[in-house]
Amino acid sequence: MARNRIGIWFIGAKGGVASTAIIGLLALKKGLTQTTALVSELPQFKKLDLVDWKDLVLGGHEIRDLSSYEEAMRLCTESRAIDGALIGKLKGDLDKLDKVIRPGTVANSGATIEGLAMAGVKSKASESPRATIDRLQADIKKFADDNKLAHVIVINVASTEPPCDASQFPTKWSELSKLLDKPKKCPLPASSLYAIATLELGYSHLNFTPSLGANLPAVDELARERKTRHMGYDGKTGETLLKSVLAPMFARRNLNVMSWVGHNIFGNMDGKVLDDPANKKAKVTSKDRLLGQILGYPPQTLVSIEYIASMGDWKTAWDHIHFQGFLGTPMTFQFIWQGCDSLLAAPLVIDLVRFTERAWRNGDVGTLTWLASFFKSPMGTPEHDFTVQFQELEKWAAAVK
Amino acid sequence: MARNRIGIWFIGAKGGVASTAIIGLLALKKGLTQTTALVSELPQFKKLDLVDWKDLVLGGHEIRDLSSYEEAMRLCTESRAIDGALIGKLKGDLDKLDKVIRPGTVANSGATIEGLAMAGVKSKASESPRATIDRLQADIKKFADDNKLAHVIVINVASTEPPCDASQFPTKWSELSKLLDKPKKCPLPASSLYAIATLELGYSHLNFTPSLGANLPAVDELARERKTRHMGYDGKTGETLLKSVLAPMFARRNLNVMSWVGHNIFGNMDGKVLDDPANKKAKVTSKDRLLGQILGYPPQTLVSIEYIASMGDWKTAWDHIHFQGFLGTPMTFQFIWQGCDSLLAAPLVIDLVRFTERAWRNGDVGTLTWLASFFKSPMGTPEHDFTVQFQELEKWAAAVK
Amino acid sequence: MARNRIGIWFIGAKGGVASTAIIGLLALKKGLTQTTALVSELPQFKKLDLVDWKDLVLGGHEIRDLSSYEEAMRLCTESRAIDGALIGKLKGDLDKLDKVIRPGTVANSGATIEGLAMAGVKSKASESPRATIDRLQADIKKFADDNKLAHVIVINVASTEPPCDASQFPTKWSELSKLLDKPKKCPLPASSLYAIATLELGYSHLNFTPSLGANLPAVDELARERKTRHMGYDGKTGETLLKSVLAPMFARRNLNVMSWVGHNIFGNMDGKVLDDPANKKAKVTSKDRLLGQILGYPPQTLVSIEYIASMGDWKTAWDHIHFQGFLGTPMTFQFIWQGCDSLLAAPLVIDLVRFTERAWRNGDVGTLTWLASFFKSPMGTPEHDFTVQFQELEKWAAAVK
Amino acid sequence: MARNRIGIWFIGAKGGVASTAIIGLLALKKGLTQTTALVSELPQFKKLDLVDWKDLVLGGHEIRDLSSYEEAMRLCTESRAIDGALIGKLKGDLDKLDKVIRPGTVANSGATIEGLAMAGVKSKASESPRATIDRLQADIKKFADDNKLAHVIVINVASTEPPCDASQFPTKWSELSKLLDKPKKCPLPASSLYAIATLELGYSHLNFTPSLGANLPAVDELARERKTRHMGYDGKTGETLLKSVLAPMFARRNLNVMSWVGHNIFGNMDGKVLDDPANKKAKVTSKDRLLGQILGYPPQTLVSIEYIASMGDWKTAWDHIHFQGFLGTPMTFQFIWQGCDSLLAAPLVIDLVRFTERAWRNGDVGTLTWLASFFKSPMGTPEHDFTVQFQELEKWAAAVK
Repeated sequence: MARNRIGIWFIGAKGGVASTAIIGLLALKKGLTQTTALVSELPQFKKLDLVDWKDLVLGGHEIRDLSSYEEAMRLCTESRAIDGALIGKLKGDLDKLDKVIRPGTVANSGATIEGLAMAGVKSKASESPRATIDRLQADIKKFADDNKLAHVIVINVASTEPPCDASQFPTKWSELSKLLDKPKKCPLPASSLYAIATLELGYSHLNFTPSLGANLPAVDELARERKTRHMGYDGKTGETLLKSVLAPMFARRNLNVMSWVGHNIFGNMDGKVLDDPANKKAKVTSKDRLLGQILGYPPQTLVSIEYIASMGDWKTAWDHIHFQGFLGTPMTFQFIWQGCDSLLAAPLVIDLVRFTERAWRNGDVGTLTWLASFFKSPMGTPEHDFTVQFQELEKWAAAVK
Repeated sequence: MARNRIGIWFIGAKGGVASTAIIGLLALKKGLTQTTALVSELPQFKKLDLVDWKDLVLGGHEIRDLSSYEEAMRLCTESRAIDGALIGKLKGDLDKLDKVIRPGTVANSGATIEGLAMAGVKSKASESPRATIDRLQADIKKFADDNKLAHVIVINVASTEPPCDASQFPTKWSELSKLLDKPKKCPLPASSLYAIATLELGYSHLNFTPSLGANLPAVDELARERKTRHMGYDGKTGETLLKSVLAPMFARRNLNVMSWVGHNIFGNMDGKVLDDPANKKAKVTSKDRLLGQILGYPPQTLVSIEYIASMGDWKTAWDHIHFQGFLGTPMTFQFIWQGCDSLLAAPLVIDLVRFTERAWRNGDVGTLTWLASFFKSPMGTPEHDFTVQFQELEKWAAAVK
Repeated sequence: MARNRIGIWFIGAKGGVASTAIIGLLALKKGLTQTTALVSELPQFKKLDLVDWKDLVLGGHEIRDLSSYEEAMRLCTESRAIDGALIGKLKGDLDKLDKVIRPGTVANSGATIEGLAMAGVKSKASESPRATIDRLQADIKKFADDNKLAHVIVINVASTEPPCDASQFPTKWSELSKLLDKPKKCPLPASSLYAIATLELGYSHLNFTPSLGANLPAVDELARERKTRHMGYDGKTGETLLKSVLAPMFARRNLNVMSWVGHNIFGNMDGKVLDDPANKKAKVTSKDRLLGQILGYPPQTLVSIEYIASMGDWKTAWDHIHFQGFLGTPMTFQFIWQGCDSLLAAPLVIDLVRFTERAWRNGDVGTLTWLASFFKSPMGTPEHDFTVQFQELEKWAAAVK
Repeated sequence: MARNRIGIWFIGAKGGVASTAIIGLLALKKGLTQTTALVSELPQFKKLDLVDWKDLVLGGHEIRDLSSYEEAMRLCTESRAIDGALIGKLKGDLDKLDKVIRPGTVANSGATIEGLAMAGVKSKASESPRATIDRLQADIKKFADDNKLAHVIVINVASTEPPCDASQFPTKWSELSKLLDKPKKCPLPASSLYAIATLELGYSHLNFTPSLGANLPAVDELARERKTRHMGYDGKTGETLLKSVLAPMFARRNLNVMSWVGHNIFGNMDGKVLDDPANKKAKVTSKDRLLGQILGYPPQTLVSIEYIASMGDWKTAWDHIHFQGFLGTPMTFQFIWQGCDSLLAAPLVIDLVRFTERAWRNGDVGTLTWLASFFKSPMGTPEHDFTVQFQELEKWAAAVK
């Protein structure tokens, strides 16, 4: 039996996370790397018969005008994150990919992101939301047709947008859809336009960023109506992953967390965008939310994310947890996490695509809450304990037909 | 209905852990402290109706000749661990307790521990194991009779003994019991004599140390035969707790842990005893075992425990975890744990006693494997993932009649 | 020969630093503590025959209405910084001291500091600078007369004021003094009024804070004219001390510091005041200045100071230094400093007073640049290398008559 | 005027330190790298007119049979320490160099080092010391003749030998030299044979290792007699450098260092050799000595060096300094140093050669104590304060003719 060919469509296709996921997928296709860091390759998921590397076809939207190969090389030369020899072997594939990547949108993405966009993207700022959605859909449909794809999974790995008040939009899809022709009445950010474009086509949508995306009741309704699926938001890669592992320990030992301070420094493009206070706010909120929910009370918290150019893609976090033990005695736990941001995110992106593809085959519709372990702010569930989230994934896998 | 009065009998009753547990219990009885750090006070265990502070009666064995009050004050003056004003308020109770505490045994405990013993304990080194057991039992029975106790829970919080090869002893209780009159043929360490003494009386036994204790098939058989219960070993208080929380995260994210180095420094009596390489070996083995079991492969590991006098009761651990992420890139996670050893252990001791008392009321017999989350080397189960261990405790609680 | 009696007059006399210095001095007078952390007690300064504890008389200005004893006890109960038993022994002296302490001024100190002031201080906000100076001088003169003091050293250890542009004031004392009667034309902050009050009296002035104080050409001229002396500013107690020790190492090894990030957390009153961005700015600037001067080039730097209530007086700093070594390879040095803020500052305050008293006897006039090792932003010298600064102190000591 | 051509002769010429120094020198000759990390390139040494890269000629002794290029590539592939592209550009030079490197000696170097030696080196274990010296000298003389060298500087960067009791050897050169024909009576380690070989030829000798080398009165006498010069021992590259910078700060602030714990982990060949307890002892002693000398009293110290394979050339040190501040309050300073061992050592090796060459031109004879800042255990001086040591270097530079 011929196997399905599946498309991965990256929003932000030349950014650090997409570049790394693409390099990883190309390397996996050619057998040039191991499957380290891929959750979907753990033994307990073997029975799922997840999509093979060779059946995955790559494409995406991007707002900047640059070469995938050059961007990838910066992960070697600036950050010492990826082996330059490996990137060299993939140059041909990366150059080919550049031709498939289409101009995206910067609608309501804030001045910092707009400042990064190429002319052809900027000039379309006056499009109506509907016109933008149509344009994005035309790109994705052509990708699907050209490659005879059985399904497409769109995953947003673009820069973080400024926070957007979701309550300003109608909660019914029938009402929201009517507004799409009226730009002034419908300031939907780019992330939501991508989500609507995807779901209207019946494709699956994943939001790896803290941007609004499909996190609107009306858009969730759209997904259910079209019998498709989505999940988000904000990939849980480093410091927050640790929080979701450590905070439950303090809770289970009944230790009283008085304060939890987390300082993050890094120097990649994501860092530059987050240096804009508007964009940073969305991220910090997402990193900070879980502690109170896990602990059951709000400790004093502080989260900073600062752009330090020399760090490149190496995100370093220092967390200082001040807690009271027995008889009220204060004690301290500190950790220092030195991880490569793109290399932590990329395998999760690949995992999410593979699990979502399986959910498509399984007929799952709506919000995929059992993917919560991959997200800082998982949609549709209040669960933030990483272990419990992971057990949900295992339970789903056990139940898949 | 009159409530049961329950005895807690501490082995090592004037050591740091027992002293702190005793201070804590006395303070709880008088309402002088909060229940922070007591797992048994978490909301999910409320339905168990665990034994109340005021129904707990304290006693124990000790090999050193010192004053409980003075020992407790050292936790204030030398370590700044416990508030001196609190200890002052408990002086009367501590002085009274000194009269209840009975001389223990140092049988086969190694030269370092023997060197700490008072004359009256040392002189009994020539007793047969049976004679020692009889003596220990007489002490415990008198304690139970004097206080009209419904049940006694004996918990070993004495210094770590050198490792002892369990395979040298017969695996049947009928055979082991016959050897008890023959000291030369039966080099059982003190910890095992305490365990046998307890279980023969039908009382419950807990081993918070890495010493051999009841970790012998013959002694487990004895417990089942007498319809009593026991659990151990080696309380999971600090660095190892973290390992059992963090290693599963690395496993679930399929990150390849290449090496895990843990250096521990502290300066209390436990530290002095562990400075003897023989005693240290038992501890290091217990701290190191779980990583391979959780990860499914053996990373290079290194565990050191060093006595640094100035640290007092403050145990500081630096752990350096070197792991490979996606595309083989090495990354680093480091943590620094600054906890007060006795204050971390004492609430767990109280929790264990309370849960075990409930198991007695529930009719549970044998090894209490659902207490695994409290131990570095839990008996009767290969499970080392803290969260899963804790879920076992919750499941037991849900099922208790 | 009768020895001189010397007055120490604290600005901010009930704050954490003054309280600790006062407790320390009272304890030293009574032989209740050692001389640990007192630079002036090092063997190389023995020949200076510095003023004895028993010849020091204490007093000061304060804007808040509270009890010195209670404030001191918070350093025990809230921060576990000072032994409560020691404070208890000094209660009588502290209560007596409260009667000597006089209401200060909050002129141009910003809303946060004004918000802390008691009614009697707030109501004098409409005084002219001259009227305030006269009032402050009357207090100090009465203190000197009542105690038959040979000399008074005034040291500012009050909360940090918002930055104040020094260039708005005339650089000649003759001109500045004329403005003192015109409040609107002369927005001198409290710290400068204290400095002028002191120097006009011929007494010595020290500024342990980053506030403006005597850091004005006109005020320096006043000091020289009155043949007295002053030095500041901003005591170098913790993280910046480390910077002034470590940065020269990087410079001398020709290692290229790419970025230096320093995050500071603490929870005392000073922290609360610095939580006001206006006040924080003065501090951060003072902490950040030295790196470029020591290294000879400006690395990317980041300094944060955050108020975390649970930390109390314990200031914890995490510094991350990212540097290039040979062949351009990036390397990392990180440190974590856990010091008790008041206990680090107080001995330096005592040292400064003692060295300054000796300078008075020696006839030194003007800016005492050889005290640079005590300050983050030493006046009158560009030298920031701690070792070289310290050698300047030793040279002065060797040359003192 | 024709410039002098100067030879650098590396003992351990294919080890990590020599490989890195050689790569660095080749890259400097070709203008492929910057002068970061070279002390000799600081502005204050400009006036010395130090030897130019292009006038340096390279050679050396080695006991292992391997390719310089392959060894260098491991610093890229295993440790991500050096850019592979740079090494690639130098392959031709490295291959040429392999032909110049001569078999060394493993005399009295312990089983671990002997185990690494190639057959041709092992077979010469029965040579008398004199025969070995003659052989080494023949190699060095041929190198000097072939390249028309004005002077040769021999620098030992080989693996650490086990400690050797210097007091067993006569203190007069006339007596020691007589023993050189009697292997059994003269168990001089390899490092000392290299030193004698060098100094007899009138060449300069540097010992970058903790091995015995020229650290014998008789060998120092030889140096003076031949009017040549030497210095050692044990390069101060990382953790000990920090100690020599930080300990003086604690001393100058009169803070009482109670304990100083330093744990070092790394995974290069040096690490493997130090995993032999005999070889490790020499290193640990050298790392530990300075604290008592700087502080004036002995704090409790602990130094460990452990081989962790995954770390490669990245040496990571965690130091925990526990000190008493004012009023006896304990505080903590911790640092984490993540440096690349070979890249820290190599520039110092180059610096030492350049300064020593200048000393030769200047006519300096004997022990070059003004090079103390480069060594953990500087010969001929008790000074361990890095800043003071560095000032000695600057003073020498100022005085050079």
